[in-house]
Amino acid sequence: MNAYNPQDKVLLAVDCIIFGFDNEDLKVLFVKRDFEPEKGNWSLIGGFLKKEETLNDAANRILHNLTGVNDIYMEQFYTWSNIDRDPVERTISTSYYAIINIQEYNEKLTEHHNAKWFSLTEAPHLIFDHNEMLAKATRRLRRRTSISPIGFGLLPEKFTMRQLQKLYESILDKKLDKRNFVNKIKSMDILIKLNEKDMTSSTKGSYLYIFDQEKYDAKQTNDFYLKL
Amino acid sequence: MNAYNPQDKVLLAVDCIIFGFDNEDLKVLFVKRDFEPEKGNWSLIGGFLKKEETLNDAANRILHNLTGVNDIYMEQFYTWSNIDRDPVERTISTSYYAIINIQEYNEKLTEHHNAKWFSLTEAPHLIFDHNEMLAKATRRLRRRTSISPIGFGLLPEKFTMRQLQKLYESILDKKLDKRNFVNKIKSMDILIKLNEKDMTSSTKGSYLYIFDQEKYDAKQTNDFYLKL
Repeated sequence: MNAYNPQDKVLLAVDCIIFGFDNEDLKVLFVKRDFEPEKGNWSLIGGFLKKEETLNDAANRILHNLTGVNDIYMEQFYTWSNIDRDPVERTISTSYYAIINIQEYNEKLTEHHNAKWFSLTEAPHLIFDHNEMLAKATRRLRRRTSISPIGFGLLPEKFTMRQLQKLYESILDKKLDKRNFVNKIKSMDILIKLNEKDMTSSTKGSYLYIFDQEKYDAKQTNDFYLKL
Repeated sequence: MNAYNPQDKVLLAVDCIIFGFDNEDLKVLFVKRDFEPEKGNWSLIGGFLKKEETLNDAANRILHNLTGVNDIYMEQFYTWSNIDRDPVERTISTSYYAIINIQEYNEKLTEHHNAKWFSLTEAPHLIFDHNEMLAKATRRLRRRTSISPIGFGLLPEKFTMRQLQKLYESILDKKLDKRNFVNKIKSMDILIKLNEKDMTSSTKGSYLYIFDQEKYDAKQTNDFYLKL
């Protein structure tokens, strides 16, 4: 069973789905493809794996080259292998996703004019099977959000309950009942309520919260699923 | 950015982690490797992707060739790309896992003498990074089990609550409190209690259950996480 045909070697690509949150809306980053086929169409942030790098290294290199962004944690989630997914030559693609705070990276991004944020609900036609990749990444992000807390790095250090709710609503793409949301989040026990208010949104003001880093990290690693 | 070096083409392998349940214990299937390097050592069920097949097809072909088993649903979970993971030549491997009912497949397996079930807790040294793959698959299976019901195909059609608890205990590798377990499972609302008892385990007998297929399927697809 050890025989292999050198003809079976394939090109391996990496495609990155970068979600961004700007305090209002969930967005996703695409680049305009500047070569054929599908020249001028939008694409995920992708490129080929090189001989001397791992998939993780390739994902980071490609993201950096195309957008200027680096040092973010991306999670690998699926490898795509339909025979004709790339019409030029058979290419397998391993996909990654991440969610970042848009404001934090905007400066780097504006130097790279090929990359652009789109509202997730207004994603354009993408090359190859990239719309399918995006759909799977979105499901993965939503599932992740439902089972494990999210927010560090996407919100200001001090945030209101309303801002946190907006983050969840934009990721899950649905309105949440305020009282239920507050109860669920409080039951997670990952927030610290400050004796300080944000006065910009109403005259009464809204209490500010910070994440309890230690508890937050514990929840991230010890998945708090339906414990049996 | 479309340039690629034909030297960057790589071999792509597929490795399958097949978990099995025999009503008592969680086992995992390995094959003895009959060629160098690491000849004689145990290995996951693996082989190379061919030019004209998808990763899913390759996983099924390889599983069938090495074990006689086919037509099972395997879930892709990670692609491994450390540079030197295969000492002979750079090979990327996409891994899959599945859990099957051992009894159902035993006949096919006994015709294939290279494949053998091991208790998960007594897994031997495996070739390359296969122990790492096994560890990741085990975590994935446990997580999956905690958030979504499991049991169809692994238990007899009619089963006792004790049998179901044994299944969960063997996957999660811990003793569960009987009363808590029964409450959690009942709250999932996926079982139908029959007016029929299994009399083999005690004189009083134990009620038999079946899965409510429709509700079970709904839970599988609409993951019932911490709903927000």
